[in-house]
Amino acid sequence: MGLIVQKFGGTSVANAERIQNVARIITDTYRQGNSVVAVLSAQGDTTDDLIEKAQEINPRASRREMDMLLSTGEQISCSLCAMAIEALGYPVVSLTGWQAGVQTNSTYSSAKIKKIRTERIQAELDRNHSIVIVTGFQGINKYDDITTLGRGGSDTSAVALAAALKADLCQIYTDVDGIYTADPRYVKGAKKLDEITFDEMLELASLGAQVLHNRSVEMAKKYRVNLEVLSSFTKKPGTKVKEVAKQMEKTQISGVAKDKNVARLALVNVEDKPGIAYKVFSLLGQKDINVDIILQSIGRGETQDISFTVKRSDADQAKELLEEHKASLGFDRIDVNKEVVKVSIVGAGMLENAGVAAKMFGALYDADINIHMISTSEIKVSVLLDESDANAAVQAIHDKFFEE
Amino acid sequence: MGLIVQKFGGTSVANAERIQNVARIITDTYRQGNSVVAVLSAQGDTTDDLIEKAQEINPRASRREMDMLLSTGEQISCSLCAMAIEALGYPVVSLTGWQAGVQTNSTYSSAKIKKIRTERIQAELDRNHSIVIVTGFQGINKYDDITTLGRGGSDTSAVALAAALKADLCQIYTDVDGIYTADPRYVKGAKKLDEITFDEMLELASLGAQVLHNRSVEMAKKYRVNLEVLSSFTKKPGTKVKEVAKQMEKTQISGVAKDKNVARLALVNVEDKPGIAYKVFSLLGQKDINVDIILQSIGRGETQDISFTVKRSDADQAKELLEEHKASLGFDRIDVNKEVVKVSIVGAGMLENAGVAAKMFGALYDADINIHMISTSEIKVSVLLDESDANAAVQAIHDKFFEE
Repeated sequence: MGLIVQKFGGTSVANAERIQNVARIITDTYRQGNSVVAVLSAQGDTTDDLIEKAQEINPRASRREMDMLLSTGEQISCSLCAMAIEALGYPVVSLTGWQAGVQTNSTYSSAKIKKIRTERIQAELDRNHSIVIVTGFQGINKYDDITTLGRGGSDTSAVALAAALKADLCQIYTDVDGIYTADPRYVKGAKKLDEITFDEMLELASLGAQVLHNRSVEMAKKYRVNLEVLSSFTKKPGTKVKEVAKQMEKTQISGVAKDKNVARLALVNVEDKPGIAYKVFSLLGQKDINVDIILQSIGRGETQDISFTVKRSDADQAKELLEEHKASLGFDRIDVNKEVVKVSIVGAGMLENAGVAAKMFGALYDADINIHMISTSEIKVSVLLDESDANAAVQAIHDKFFEE
Repeated sequence: MGLIVQKFGGTSVANAERIQNVARIITDTYRQGNSVVAVLSAQGDTTDDLIEKAQEINPRASRREMDMLLSTGEQISCSLCAMAIEALGYPVVSLTGWQAGVQTNSTYSSAKIKKIRTERIQAELDRNHSIVIVTGFQGINKYDDITTLGRGGSDTSAVALAAALKADLCQIYTDVDGIYTADPRYVKGAKKLDEITFDEMLELASLGAQVLHNRSVEMAKKYRVNLEVLSSFTKKPGTKVKEVAKQMEKTQISGVAKDKNVARLALVNVEDKPGIAYKVFSLLGQKDINVDIILQSIGRGETQDISFTVKRSDADQAKELLEEHKASLGFDRIDVNKEVVKVSIVGAGMLENAGVAAKMFGALYDADINIHMISTSEIKVSVLLDESDANAAVQAIHDKFFEE
């Protein structure tokens, strides 16, 4: 008995049948004596269809009008879901972002939530004992214009509502039934985790485990919102995301992740003078190109090599940008390798267990896989490998940690 | 140079190309130095598609949620149209019903506009010199819930905005290029009218000339909004609807109209006692069944017949209702004839011209067409005929008044 915020993504509400399924999950929760606020994304491909309509008319439409257009997607899914709940005989009301009091800044298409005025939702919950369905992904700015939150926006809406309403739990329903020790589609023996910490989740999400968007996990961590990731298609319990999680017995890590959206650039024979790394990375930063792993070779006389990774989609722009400044930076050439992949292990357990990185390197050595670059943080070890080695590497590492 | 409100219906914005055409009409008007507020309906079949989606989930969905759903249609067409105007390089902003300050009562699905708070629109027009695109058909009630205005709602939105903004002209763009003396698809020699009075337009609209919805004409008459009906597909001038219109030379009527949505009921051998007509029509009135033409035969001894017309779609319900009260009303049987049609002539000129009705009956007599019932008002004469005579009757009457 408490207040539960439930979020359902686009695949969970893709058609009439699935919306009716979501209505059953919501009303089951309500019937158990809970207050329920459900946050919905737009149905399946609705957003893409609307973007296509806009492209046909004006490929450079203003973001303000794009937000006006795209926000209709959630309004449709939410009103339909409310109708499905009405059909089951429960009190329900659907609310748009502005009706739900979601106030954002004015960065159209990637707005940030500033505040949620919860009076309306609270009144619907308390006075009318209604189930409240809220459009995810959207809000309103100080000009009373509709804004959208950008990628992962509905997760963020759900967590922000859970924080503002001081909800007991925020359940993120999706098409997978939890967080796994590795991608179960590719890795034999991948296990579902019962619990995981916010920090581990953040590292996993940034590594390409696209279950939860980082923004929403960061917000959940900040406001101590208890999260649970679970499937809308099965009735199984999912994975809880918390400040401190129970470690699975005998395991030192929570998961192994693979990130293919990566490329390596190497500046060959850079003049070995002070501030060169600073110049390179501030140039890239100005164009919003994030650099991940950096390897600066030890100077061999007057020159050295600098290697670093960027998102694969940024690689060409990064190369072009550095070529433009070839004269002032002083290097021979730039090598770009897009056929690489980053494989990482993540685990709060590493903090107390020495030798975790060594165990990972050992697994790769045994599997005869070559490591190009290494990066470590408190709860993560990442290695850069040839893309062709990726799946074998993940399996070898997973076997080493979870099967032994 | 002034403030012009332009309304575009669903067929005028049905696809990308037509939206771009509408954008050109709007920007042409703006470029001539006018301030422009455009009111748009949902694209083509959008509303029907949304209704179908709702039906699939819950055939008895609440009207509140239906309005939440259906209001997205105009939001889509308006944001797309704003994008098309952006592409042409003009300042523009699209506004939903609530952003535009359209306040209604709480009769979901057929709400009435109570007030329009024009501050936002006025600011966009004055401060930003923007073209303003407003969603038709919708508003917001005192609970901050979205309402829709029901049939003909976008016309009403446009006229209400024109009244509130004290616009110089309200142009209703549609798929016909004006009001005709008869339906040009069926009547040879039908002519477009340059001008028509509000009262004539009201009579014509209620008779099935479905160009303008009565609600919008009534509102235009009440607030003295100059209307013009014209086509978004041609560049021709349309028909102006005003308080006093120039009469076309030599013509006594403005038009001939045909209404097929009619049925005749006859109560046969009703007891000839006081108050019987009152009882019959108040019974029907309680069920929102409107009675149009009424014919009470002269008493033949102790019984008489009462004939009247209702909408064809109401006929079965009316019969059923009266059968239920057969004992108290006291009649032998009810005859229902659905194969009838109402043909009418309308014209402010009748007020000053005697013999207009006689001329109409003469035309029907010459064409050997039998009249079942007759009804007259100050500016209208209607006759009930067999449906099979309808087209010949309209042509004969039209020839008599416009060809001679």
